[in-house]
Amino acid sequence: MSPSIFETSAPHDEPSRLTAFAINTLDRRSEHRTEGDLQEALSKSDTLFFAFSKGNALVKQGRSLLTLKDIEQFEPDFDNAAIIGWTNEGSARVTVSIKLDEEQLKEGDQLLNPRSIYSNNLLTGDLLGQLAQAASINAWINSTLFCGVCGHKTKPRAGGYNRQCTGCEKLHFPRTDPVVIMLIIDEKNDRCLMGRSPHFATQMYSTLAGFVEPGETIEDAVRRETFEESGIKVGRVRYHASQPWPMPHTLMIGCIAEALTTEIDYDSEELEDCRWFSREEVAERLKHSEGEDRLSPPKGAIAHRLLQDWLDWT
Amino acid sequence: MSPSIFETSAPHDEPSRLTAFAINTLDRRSEHRTEGDLQEALSKSDTLFFAFSKGNALVKQGRSLLTLKDIEQFEPDFDNAAIIGWTNEGSARVTVSIKLDEEQLKEGDQLLNPRSIYSNNLLTGDLLGQLAQAASINAWINSTLFCGVCGHKTKPRAGGYNRQCTGCEKLHFPRTDPVVIMLIIDEKNDRCLMGRSPHFATQMYSTLAGFVEPGETIEDAVRRETFEESGIKVGRVRYHASQPWPMPHTLMIGCIAEALTTEIDYDSEELEDCRWFSREEVAERLKHSEGEDRLSPPKGAIAHRLLQDWLDWT
Repeated sequence: MSPSIFETSAPHDEPSRLTAFAINTLDRRSEHRTEGDLQEALSKSDTLFFAFSKGNALVKQGRSLLTLKDIEQFEPDFDNAAIIGWTNEGSARVTVSIKLDEEQLKEGDQLLNPRSIYSNNLLTGDLLGQLAQAASINAWINSTLFCGVCGHKTKPRAGGYNRQCTGCEKLHFPRTDPVVIMLIIDEKNDRCLMGRSPHFATQMYSTLAGFVEPGETIEDAVRRETFEESGIKVGRVRYHASQPWPMPHTLMIGCIAEALTTEIDYDSEELEDCRWFSREEVAERLKHSEGEDRLSPPKGAIAHRLLQDWLDWT
Repeated sequence: MSPSIFETSAPHDEPSRLTAFAINTLDRRSEHRTEGDLQEALSKSDTLFFAFSKGNALVKQGRSLLTLKDIEQFEPDFDNAAIIGWTNEGSARVTVSIKLDEEQLKEGDQLLNPRSIYSNNLLTGDLLGQLAQAASINAWINSTLFCGVCGHKTKPRAGGYNRQCTGCEKLHFPRTDPVVIMLIIDEKNDRCLMGRSPHFATQMYSTLAGFVEPGETIEDAVRRETFEESGIKVGRVRYHASQPWPMPHTLMIGCIAEALTTEIDYDSEELEDCRWFSREEVAERLKHSEGEDRLSPPKGAIAHRLLQDWLDWT
């Protein structure tokens, strides 16, 4: 018998599972959400909430999953809320906007963006995944309050997971932006390409990345973005892993790609530097991936995964 | 020396290249589009246009790439046009909306959606890819004429490739919707899963597919959609190929996935039927992939690619 089509040489069967925000066990019932779901959930005592003020999650004494009592004083906007899913026990999880400023916070309570929650390890596993989904849907709702076709207000449908224009009746669906993020490998010289953006931690380098454009394959997006940012021409592209990235609603598509050239001519509007790193340098940098003076993207970031898996691959 | 990280057992190095709409050699200059690009392009005689009326492309005597003279009588909306890219010779390509009804068409001219253009082989290769990009950007512009945050009008930026709200100044970027499309394999019994949607050609079956949701990896989207549509539980997922699909602005992400169960319980709201197909049945069906009475998705469709490559793989 031939080897299974699912046997690959990769160091993990599914590296996506090893990225932050990826684990989410809620039942989304995406084909079966009904108009009444949200009202029903709001009437039940076991329903819990993720609450956001201007994109920042309310974290009360370390808890991000909140009760109605936790949030009712902050004018929760239930007219523009959404069910993100149900637990195994049938308990609903709802994402909702609240009105709350930093100054109003009680001691021990925080307003944090999903990036800080992840990089400070405040949540992990399933709860971090649910938070990502809640943050992305909340951001999408807040940018879809009006219809882009005609400018009229939209109203929630399907438990808040869709929205419909009150003027032209167009249905709006959640938005997810695909981004390619790629580790470019110069196999002959056993090295990889990383750049640094001016807003990175001061010593950190990471893999290149960019939005997939309309009318483009994943592989072509990898080649275009790499060439635009670094001047390096890319040949073969191999998908490796993906990661939900809720800033605000991105799907990171992680690839390993083959450098056909070695002369770097980087885009100085985008990058502060871009250079080749040996296997040994990468191994050393990955040991310093936490905190403000980190040298590489933190554990859980798909860039970290691409780098570590390249080291482990061969 | 170990084998290259880019050596896989797949029957093609890059099956994405073999899908319709995938080839597009325009230089997008995505990081370097400037405000004046569109005005400059409109003043040059070598600039050519893709023109759309309600999402349908004007095809004049078989040509989809049109001159200013071809379209000027149809009130081209240059205030909401966009440059999609430049040829190697530096000639710009612009996507623009026009006002034109079926009744106004001269003999030999047509208004066609991208799907018909592709399935009738009216365009191929690079021009089909450019048309896909033009159609997707045109659709995005027409659904982003108003700001979703505040309802004010938007205006074009960066040669039309971005839009900015005239009220709250929010920048809007082109939208691309990631969709997973998957061939589910029961390796032990050497068969694969296909379903038929009520709107398919009457004898046709194809692979299952669905939108990636916010806060979800590609692999989890494959498992969720497969379970929701067919009741089959999926284990390992292997990315295979991607395809731009301009109806209106989708990125098809094609995967091969491992069935862990064999008992089908399909969603009768979505599907008319769903069943297992042997390797021999698939081979026979792929011979009949053209025309109204086709048995399988047409060549160029990523579903066709997944099926053919499964046959060729082992």
